[in-house]
Amino acid sequence: MTQRPIITLTTDFGLEDEYVGVLKGVLLSFLPEVQIIDISHAIRPQDIQGAAAILSRSCGFFPDSTVHLAVVDPGVGSSRPLLALKTDRQVFVGPDNGIFSPFLQEDSIQIHRISNDCLYLSPVSPTFQGRDIMAPVAAQLAGGMAIGTVGPAVPPENCCIIDTGRPQISNNQLVGEIVAMDHFGNLRTNITGMDINRFAGKEPITLEIGARVIEGLQLTYSETERGKLIALLDSSNSVEIAVVCGNAWQEIHARPRQKVVVRLERDGVSCQGAPG
Amino acid sequence: MTQRPIITLTTDFGLEDEYVGVLKGVLLSFLPEVQIIDISHAIRPQDIQGAAAILSRSCGFFPDSTVHLAVVDPGVGSSRPLLALKTDRQVFVGPDNGIFSPFLQEDSIQIHRISNDCLYLSPVSPTFQGRDIMAPVAAQLAGGMAIGTVGPAVPPENCCIIDTGRPQISNNQLVGEIVAMDHFGNLRTNITGMDINRFAGKEPITLEIGARVIEGLQLTYSETERGKLIALLDSSNSVEIAVVCGNAWQEIHARPRQKVVVRLERDGVSCQGAPG
Amino acid sequence: MTQRPIITLTTDFGLEDEYVGVLKGVLLSFLPEVQIIDISHAIRPQDIQGAAAILSRSCGFFPDSTVHLAVVDPGVGSSRPLLALKTDRQVFVGPDNGIFSPFLQEDSIQIHRISNDCLYLSPVSPTFQGRDIMAPVAAQLAGGMAIGTVGPAVPPENCCIIDTGRPQISNNQLVGEIVAMDHFGNLRTNITGMDINRFAGKEPITLEIGARVIEGLQLTYSETERGKLIALLDSSNSVEIAVVCGNAWQEIHARPRQKVVVRLERDGVSCQGAPG
Repeated sequence: MTQRPIITLTTDFGLEDEYVGVLKGVLLSFLPEVQIIDISHAIRPQDIQGAAAILSRSCGFFPDSTVHLAVVDPGVGSSRPLLALKTDRQVFVGPDNGIFSPFLQEDSIQIHRISNDCLYLSPVSPTFQGRDIMAPVAAQLAGGMAIGTVGPAVPPENCCIIDTGRPQISNNQLVGEIVAMDHFGNLRTNITGMDINRFAGKEPITLEIGARVIEGLQLTYSETERGKLIALLDSSNSVEIAVVCGNAWQEIHARPRQKVVVRLERDGVSCQGAPG
Repeated sequence: MTQRPIITLTTDFGLEDEYVGVLKGVLLSFLPEVQIIDISHAIRPQDIQGAAAILSRSCGFFPDSTVHLAVVDPGVGSSRPLLALKTDRQVFVGPDNGIFSPFLQEDSIQIHRISNDCLYLSPVSPTFQGRDIMAPVAAQLAGGMAIGTVGPAVPPENCCIIDTGRPQISNNQLVGEIVAMDHFGNLRTNITGMDINRFAGKEPITLEIGARVIEGLQLTYSETERGKLIALLDSSNSVEIAVVCGNAWQEIHARPRQKVVVRLERDGVSCQGAPG
Repeated sequence: MTQRPIITLTTDFGLEDEYVGVLKGVLLSFLPEVQIIDISHAIRPQDIQGAAAILSRSCGFFPDSTVHLAVVDPGVGSSRPLLALKTDRQVFVGPDNGIFSPFLQEDSIQIHRISNDCLYLSPVSPTFQGRDIMAPVAAQLAGGMAIGTVGPAVPPENCCIIDTGRPQISNNQLVGEIVAMDHFGNLRTNITGMDINRFAGKEPITLEIGARVIEGLQLTYSETERGKLIALLDSSNSVEIAVVCGNAWQEIHARPRQKVVVRLERDGVSCQGAPG
């Protein structure tokens, strides 16, 4: 059995309307043998940063040559360009609004601005270019079209990059923040396992969020009692704050972008609790 | 690679229960090579009009010979018939409750009442005919079975039609209504671009909803500042009321079926605001 | 066209995050021709009983040799084993936490503990074994690998079984409970059509829930007026309490595990209403 081309979808369309179905209809019209996989359609409306994070955490698990179509596009209809990107393994199609920030610094990346209107549906609606431009282009790329066909090459430094929020070290503390809450109420931070290693090496650490102090990182959710607030490295190797068999988001009333402060245990805990 | 038959699903089943999975299991049992595409399972329970709208906005984007299975069926188990329809391009299967109203007046339509119980799962549950009758019939039609096999032909005038709510012209105004809110909080109306053209030609217009007045139609969400209330033609060529990068539904506290009044700009705005 | 292997997914992952997409990426990486079908990702977090119920109600509708991957796994990273099960028709992969309780007593069942780490992704994250162990194993089983390859056989009596809550007969009454509410607000009970037959034979019955009394079982939602509270046998042959074209959950303020009492009509209704 021949391998079928794969296109993934990451959008803020939700599942109530016809938008996702319409995208799929267009993809199938251009490439009947395509295998379409939903990554998520529940990106918060216009949350480019959230979409970039979901994409970068998931794309590596797909086979080579997968095409990732990402439509979170508050600027639809404006002059913001549309892009097709090719890394050494995969292809991406979406708006030039920062959604591809995690990939723009890869060595082998090729970026092309989409401008070849022979590839589009016609007429192009000014409010749904996902349907009329991006889906047709993604399908044709998944079907084997050379990326140069979509339009001229663009250097990465001409593309929109958004801040993906790296943590800061100051005063013997590593200060990151909550970047997302997952479906289980686990709090995702922008602090990676590598950040912890660089900051603390093998030394014991404490983490502070609001008035709560957590001692060290657990390996799993299961090594301590139900209901306890813990921190651990999640499946993407980022620090996550969780309540065992519970919902950390509800329990500690966390806020988006709330600060998470990591200290060496020997430096003690600040008297005032964490700053924010 | 041969093209695989496509079946789309439009239901009010939601995604919490096993109902959608069960439908897909039945489809695959009858037609292992089928490609199943979800249009939406978030139609509001028993909202036949909503399902009809979603279907009519999306079906045209699918390849020829696609079979659309639509199960929003408050009358399940009653004597309401089940239908299979064939237009010149596609096939539809579902209850005769108005869900296919948008297609019943197509010239080339063939309609058959489903009555050939050799095609069904057995026994047929009186509460889940989607599973036991409609899915098996849809799968067998997608596999190439002639539509006449399902049962006798029915003329369109014997089928249930629901009011799809066309706008009215009176007193120099075009009065439509809000028919849906999408995932972004955009307000969809029953006023099409063609209605506007017929009413106003090239003349400037104003739109009123509640106490708010909107001047003219924008082309895209992007040509004005964030937070502004605008109207534009959406990707289905219907008038949509939106807040740029915001949620019109929340902002103007719109109600389902709230009136939207279009006037020629030269006729001015009514003193009392729109009627409702 | 050759039949493609099918893998279904039943998880508590929700659809907001990248988790489901990542699972699918891994499945496709191991088995490019796989057909992936979502049963539900909306199992309540850590609700093993809910997942077991959804699985047992849906798996029978899928073709032979379907592989069902079930990841509701509050013990992820603990020492709880992972299992692969084979019944005479299908295959199941998931944690040994009771999620497979409905199948453990099937005569022909083969159960193997997953321990062959050659089959896994590497490294294995302690918090996402669905991705790193269960998905790779499921894909390889769907691709035709013998079940014995995953690890040693385990007898069913060594596996975790959870109470699936059978109703009780006492004092001339059959007492069951509400086990779930579906998307329509219908109340599902643990009382089956067979329980009713054994208890009442052909005699008329009444059902009590809270202070409400329902006379007998209807055949369909459609044989009585809108808004009426009824009971009927649902599409899984269990007693369901529903409001015709309405939402029973909201209307009678039902609680999870609320008692449902069935009596013979000739025994009359208790003066105090049902016990709760």
